[in-house]
Amino acid sequence: MNLEIDSARLLSEIEALALISEAAPPVVTRIVFTPADMRARVWLIDHCRAAGLAVRQDAVGNTFARWQGSDHAAAAVGTGSHLDAIPNAGKYDGVVGVLGGLEAIRALQRAGFHPQNSIELLLFTSEEPTRFGIGCLGSRLLSGALSADAARKLIDSNAEPLDEVRRKAGLSGKLEEVQMPGGYYKAFLELHIEQGPVLERERVPLGIVTRIAAPASARISIEGEGGHAGTVLMADRRDALCAASELILATENAARTSSSIDTVATVGMCEVFPGAINSIPSLVRISVDVRDTDLARRDGVMCALETTAKQISERRSLSIRIEMLNADAPAECAPGVIDALSASCRKHGQKFLPMISRAYHDSLFMVRIAPVAMLFIPCRNGYSHRPDEYASIEDIARGALVLAETLAGLSV
Amino acid sequence: MNLEIDSARLLSEIEALALISEAAPPVVTRIVFTPADMRARVWLIDHCRAAGLAVRQDAVGNTFARWQGSDHAAAAVGTGSHLDAIPNAGKYDGVVGVLGGLEAIRALQRAGFHPQNSIELLLFTSEEPTRFGIGCLGSRLLSGALSADAARKLIDSNAEPLDEVRRKAGLSGKLEEVQMPGGYYKAFLELHIEQGPVLERERVPLGIVTRIAAPASARISIEGEGGHAGTVLMADRRDALCAASELILATENAARTSSSIDTVATVGMCEVFPGAINSIPSLVRISVDVRDTDLARRDGVMCALETTAKQISERRSLSIRIEMLNADAPAECAPGVIDALSASCRKHGQKFLPMISRAYHDSLFMVRIAPVAMLFIPCRNGYSHRPDEYASIEDIARGALVLAETLAGLSV
Repeated sequence: MNLEIDSARLLSEIEALALISEAAPPVVTRIVFTPADMRARVWLIDHCRAAGLAVRQDAVGNTFARWQGSDHAAAAVGTGSHLDAIPNAGKYDGVVGVLGGLEAIRALQRAGFHPQNSIELLLFTSEEPTRFGIGCLGSRLLSGALSADAARKLIDSNAEPLDEVRRKAGLSGKLEEVQMPGGYYKAFLELHIEQGPVLERERVPLGIVTRIAAPASARISIEGEGGHAGTVLMADRRDALCAASELILATENAARTSSSIDTVATVGMCEVFPGAINSIPSLVRISVDVRDTDLARRDGVMCALETTAKQISERRSLSIRIEMLNADAPAECAPGVIDALSASCRKHGQKFLPMISRAYHDSLFMVRIAPVAMLFIPCRNGYSHRPDEYASIEDIARGALVLAETLAGLSV
Repeated sequence: MNLEIDSARLLSEIEALALISEAAPPVVTRIVFTPADMRARVWLIDHCRAAGLAVRQDAVGNTFARWQGSDHAAAAVGTGSHLDAIPNAGKYDGVVGVLGGLEAIRALQRAGFHPQNSIELLLFTSEEPTRFGIGCLGSRLLSGALSADAARKLIDSNAEPLDEVRRKAGLSGKLEEVQMPGGYYKAFLELHIEQGPVLERERVPLGIVTRIAAPASARISIEGEGGHAGTVLMADRRDALCAASELILATENAARTSSSIDTVATVGMCEVFPGAINSIPSLVRISVDVRDTDLARRDGVMCALETTAKQISERRSLSIRIEMLNADAPAECAPGVIDALSASCRKHGQKFLPMISRAYHDSLFMVRIAPVAMLFIPCRNGYSHRPDEYASIEDIARGALVLAETLAGLSV
């Protein structure tokens, strides 16, 4: 089989997709169910159909593009990622896994390969947590990690429920029907940029993920007392932003002083109410995101935060409410799929590094219903979630080639 | 002269005006040049005309409603305040001075008083700094404290220049023409809620302001480096929100540890970019508002902040830019106008307290072109700049009565 990736076409598709954005180039912002996200979906579906794939969408917008195999009864081999992007993001996060997967399928078609197991390209809905506060919405529902009832309680920042938002986006059907039957997939593979500096630093072009770090996230509301910035004396204040600032620094400190460099914690959002230059903040909402490869250590940071919040609220006489959004377990990749990826690398003479994923991915949830592994390619300086995120087309094409080889190996 | 305040009418006007708001009752939000602000202006002008006053507006929207006196050449006696309100404010800040002033004029008309000096009711544009970052925009221009050139450089949060915004609001003429000629006013009086707890605590219904505390305010931009909340290790981060948190706590501490309770400092705004739960903040903008009755002590807090900002930026390897918005001098009220107010209080058998104003007001700038004093009435718990701000109609009417008596005394 003469497998060849069409790099020029793949690059032009990545560039074309980057222009479907809520922000001007080079910024990519594609929040789930906004017009930009919906246009990106239509664009992808058109390209899948052009490749002869049969496309279906589920009730939450997860999209499946199927290359029918000769054995209709056999479990499918899945690959894919997401197209949604956080505000002020770049071109490659998620996109490489979706367009790289599509190109892998087209390369197999061009090489005259005929799959026995069907090969399915997946586009997951809302891997990013921007809109509903919870990441991997599509894969959580698909894998049963999130129930339809729990999903119906999700609201966006305008208090609009997920169920309403997805209906406005034209998605019908019941959320209950999103969960996949067990055994549907023989294996699932996700190609992704590393989003960290390891591969670049080690000068190795491919990483095979053995373990995915576990995220926990929370929304914290701090309610103090507002008032006039001139007339309320310092001793009489219950300033919600000062309390939030203590909590932000405590979060940073808890991650810095955990016993491992693998612990990271971030406060990425801070909303101040009423938000006037001459008004004491009465209400502040912050987000907290804590990750670690070790579950106990990560939960230790969250516990430390709760203790600190209690101390701050007592000392400052204000109320602090912590609402956990998610606290997922780390995932182990499947030895069989890791081996299949390793064999493909060796077959094509490519060096690879076994590694952990510090970022989490839809694969973290796909492990619940299928044997999973991930293939990483380097990205410049480890930058991700920013407009200067960059992966070379050579590295992307190399990833797509190894992915194609592995899909073929699993589909016979 | 039988002076009588129509309390029922004054109360119903305060309630009616409170409904002209960008937010639902009981919240009042009336940002300058928004539809709510413009509707409030029209409402006031109609009521002034109904009272037989001649109304004119200047190029920035300061509004003058004149009761012509018998001596056309004599300097006018001015009174007034503002109608704009910060986000999530109450019904009384500013409003009491405008509607109380209007009712004082109507009470004098009903009593058959004929002024020798004209009496002018003033509505100042944008006493609140919400939109353009600088308070007392109208009175600064009117008094020459702000030049037309400097005003033209002001922009709102959408980067729209003041000159453009005011033209869209239908205001013509040149900003150069706003400044009033010296000697135009014989005296200026401002009736206002105290916005602090002193009068209520001391059980005295009226306060005569002898000195107005001085504000300084700044915008601070902190620029660090964004990135993925999972993959950038703690040691590699330049998190702009962590730096901002340190600065917010340093601001609080500098005010708390000044040698006087008169020093207050507030960070009322905090904007985080990009503002996603899983993204390290790359840029944060905060506001700082510092006030004191003592200029040197206040400027000491600002200096301490600059030093701290330098230390933080070096330690965290990020850039912090401080842009001063204003740094005004405290104002002394005029003994002659203070005496006139005191005499009116005594004439009506009202106790009063000489006091300082911790909040600043348009009067802070009117001192530049006229002898000025302020009359304070109590407000519940000292609350202001919040929806539960409250002053009783008895206290408001008492203030309007003393104001009317004083206007009459100064207009003969």
